[in-house]
Amino acid sequence: MSSDRIRLASLQSKVVSAAEAASLIKDGMTVGMSGFTRAGEAKAVPLALVEQAKTNPLKITLVTGASLGNDIDKKLTEVGALARRMPFQVDNTLRKAINEGKVMFTDQHLSETVEQMRNYQIPRPDIAVIEAVAITEKGHIVPTTSVGNSASFVQFAKQVIVEINTTLSPDLEGLHDIYIPEERPNRTPVKLVRPEDRIGTTAIEVDPSKIVAIVFSDLSDSPSNVQPPDDETQAIADHLIDFLKKEVTDGRLPNSLRPLQVGIGTIANAVTSGLIKSPFTDLVQYSEVLQDSTFELLDAGKLKFASASSITVSAACGERVFGNINEYKDRLVLRPQEISNLPEIVRRLGTISINTALEFDIYGNVNSTHVNGSKMMNGIGGSGDFARNAHIAVFVTKSTAKNDAISSVVPMVSHVDHTGHDADVLVTEQGLADLRGLAPRERARAIIDNCVHPAYRDALNAYFEAASAKGGQTPHILKEALSWHINLEEHGTMLPR
Amino acid sequence: MSSDRIRLASLQSKVVSAAEAASLIKDGMTVGMSGFTRAGEAKAVPLALVEQAKTNPLKITLVTGASLGNDIDKKLTEVGALARRMPFQVDNTLRKAINEGKVMFTDQHLSETVEQMRNYQIPRPDIAVIEAVAITEKGHIVPTTSVGNSASFVQFAKQVIVEINTTLSPDLEGLHDIYIPEERPNRTPVKLVRPEDRIGTTAIEVDPSKIVAIVFSDLSDSPSNVQPPDDETQAIADHLIDFLKKEVTDGRLPNSLRPLQVGIGTIANAVTSGLIKSPFTDLVQYSEVLQDSTFELLDAGKLKFASASSITVSAACGERVFGNINEYKDRLVLRPQEISNLPEIVRRLGTISINTALEFDIYGNVNSTHVNGSKMMNGIGGSGDFARNAHIAVFVTKSTAKNDAISSVVPMVSHVDHTGHDADVLVTEQGLADLRGLAPRERARAIIDNCVHPAYRDALNAYFEAASAKGGQTPHILKEALSWHINLEEHGTMLPR
Repeated sequence: MSSDRIRLASLQSKVVSAAEAASLIKDGMTVGMSGFTRAGEAKAVPLALVEQAKTNPLKITLVTGASLGNDIDKKLTEVGALARRMPFQVDNTLRKAINEGKVMFTDQHLSETVEQMRNYQIPRPDIAVIEAVAITEKGHIVPTTSVGNSASFVQFAKQVIVEINTTLSPDLEGLHDIYIPEERPNRTPVKLVRPEDRIGTTAIEVDPSKIVAIVFSDLSDSPSNVQPPDDETQAIADHLIDFLKKEVTDGRLPNSLRPLQVGIGTIANAVTSGLIKSPFTDLVQYSEVLQDSTFELLDAGKLKFASASSITVSAACGERVFGNINEYKDRLVLRPQEISNLPEIVRRLGTISINTALEFDIYGNVNSTHVNGSKMMNGIGGSGDFARNAHIAVFVTKSTAKNDAISSVVPMVSHVDHTGHDADVLVTEQGLADLRGLAPRERARAIIDNCVHPAYRDALNAYFEAASAKGGQTPHILKEALSWHINLEEHGTMLPR
Repeated sequence: MSSDRIRLASLQSKVVSAAEAASLIKDGMTVGMSGFTRAGEAKAVPLALVEQAKTNPLKITLVTGASLGNDIDKKLTEVGALARRMPFQVDNTLRKAINEGKVMFTDQHLSETVEQMRNYQIPRPDIAVIEAVAITEKGHIVPTTSVGNSASFVQFAKQVIVEINTTLSPDLEGLHDIYIPEERPNRTPVKLVRPEDRIGTTAIEVDPSKIVAIVFSDLSDSPSNVQPPDDETQAIADHLIDFLKKEVTDGRLPNSLRPLQVGIGTIANAVTSGLIKSPFTDLVQYSEVLQDSTFELLDAGKLKFASASSITVSAACGERVFGNINEYKDRLVLRPQEISNLPEIVRRLGTISINTALEFDIYGNVNSTHVNGSKMMNGIGGSGDFARNAHIAVFVTKSTAKNDAISSVVPMVSHVDHTGHDADVLVTEQGLADLRGLAPRERARAIIDNCVHPAYRDALNAYFEAASAKGGQTPHILKEALSWHINLEEHGTMLPR
């Protein structure tokens, strides 16, 4: 086993227990860990760290690709080990600590974290903990189900811990394409011009002497918790597919569309699933995460190729894909998130980007992160990397939440993650608003007429008409702009009283 | 004269009066005109159009590079000729019409207008009107003091009117570098890796048969109206230069810094001027507009090279530069705004980007455009193209306006153009807040301690403390978040009463 998975003989002596490896992580350190959208995170070492922290308290800055599975964020939070966390998370317990101001959370565009480290604008990791399927003859690290920020963490860290996941086949080698941009001012163009292009190496290059510990683990990724489509997510998918069909008919898109980027989550997954019955062919994906729907499309012959930074799927789908990886490997590539999300590439390829909004306002400003303006949900993730540079930036959401007590379409969003400049198309189960080229007053008309739930339409019309009479490019009545959210806070509903 | 300036003999018969050329512009047309930050706009033809509109009313969609000089927006507005305007403007009369909802204004990232046209997402121009210093032997168009969107307008338009400006030397030929990205999906990397790289042609390529009219004009660009530095803009410049010095000392920047992008305006100009007395050497600029300060730095030997899309200078500076263009030409290049502002290039080069904010809030969200949330000032311009992708994104503003009745630092901005994710450093005459890597609560502390005017500090502290006690990643009290703006509307001041 050890010689299969650790092909550089001199490194075989570095195998230690998870506890020994975890003891290398000291109070005050910045730790760079693998893991992106609950895929490919280091597992045994952070869980051992949790155990140690129970008796030897410590505080670290934890930087990952994106969210982690296996309750790692939850457990690290519970033992008080997190001083600072970036750039993304999805855990309930950590979320609570963040919103209480107990953990400092730096919410970042996912393409930017390692850029800022490269420029010494945020601390580089003292130590990196990277999940792998193998270490090569040269001592290089072959990642597992995600690449995330791992390659740059390994480059920047003084010490590297490798966690070899024996539940995954070594045949994953060849799935990854590792490319790290040069430091400024000597940076050159990233030569990727098609989603299927390979521009790097299949393993993370590292001076083997930096590898200070190797741990074997048999823990699996947490399965995806995406829900199957319901009537409303199906309606959203249908509206969007009708819009795309019309773009094809009108000659603005080819029948293979443009490379698809689909954010994580139930609505986005439903949209992708909906493409199976669509007339589009020879689709490609240039995304940050691949969900079950990607493999449905691949299996159905609808999708030719998929590029991303991670694969986050259900247990059944994971068995199908990772158990037969050689059948999929020529149609898949996993890249560093700096490349999967790079503005340069997104703009060059011109993705059709579909991301989920928490709420949007009548002028097309989008809140992706903050409940009622203050409380962090997850983080902006890659939505900004894509939406700003996409061919068509789409935001989707159900028109209401909590049994209609909350309208997702509001006079003014309580927090802005994407400005109206960056939102081309908004979709709810009610309909689709095509905002391209419109001025704000025209956007308001399109959004109110197409997206808002009937229970809120009259109130939103009344707001817009009163504000318009008052004037402005983006008419608002500041005294009322946030009143729907204030109502929600005070009375538990945005519904007109 | 005509044969010097129109070197393709077959086009010499196309010379007509401005009035004849203007009569080609018909009601309902989309017109693409040269002009960027009041530099290089077509002048004689639009002014002739104004005269015609007085007796033959018409409505057009006017798309330019950015703002126009010579009161062209004002006069077109006064005769009611503008149905729609994009992507930027700075004229008082037009601004009023926009805010009254009489002209539909589509405010865009300046790099994106022609991308959207290329993709048929906004209408392509029916006719292009382009100022030039000459037409070459091949019938290609040599622009004047800006490139803006002219090259793509010429490519997209069915008809082209060229307006030859005889006040400018034909020696401007060679100043420009015209490069247009390929259509998707066949786009390749833009091969620019240094601000001084030339990747295109010196004139705008066009099938000469599309040139339907040529007009001679002797009208000059309106001179820049930038004010000399005052004590406060000088203090802003000093804070920023001290910060950059420390970045150099700490090894995060070389002594030549990174390519500088400086937005248009008095504060930005003062910052650039301030670099003359700085210890930095071998500076380069990769900007959208070059102001007087660029030429002060070039003349002082501080600046090695400057790339932009336009030159907008005072009358005296214009005489010095354009009267001696051969002395400057090897240190200057003007590019299409799609390239000067391209996210791909901005991120590759890693600019230090300095743009002006109207207001920012305690969490670092920036409003660049809307007074009190509703009224458009000018537009977002290129600030988003740069800030999102810069090495360091800096926003500057005086801490108060209107004799301290308005605080530029507020609990919540009334409109968001740049989210906290995209603002690294904020500067007022009070001081500088370095927000890199900070969580929102930490950002608030840095901003309140460093940037706010003393008259507002206690009130802002009180807001932040009360909001923090309530909780959240980005603590707000929604009932009070916009109260400063509401106070201003109702009582003419944000000052605590």
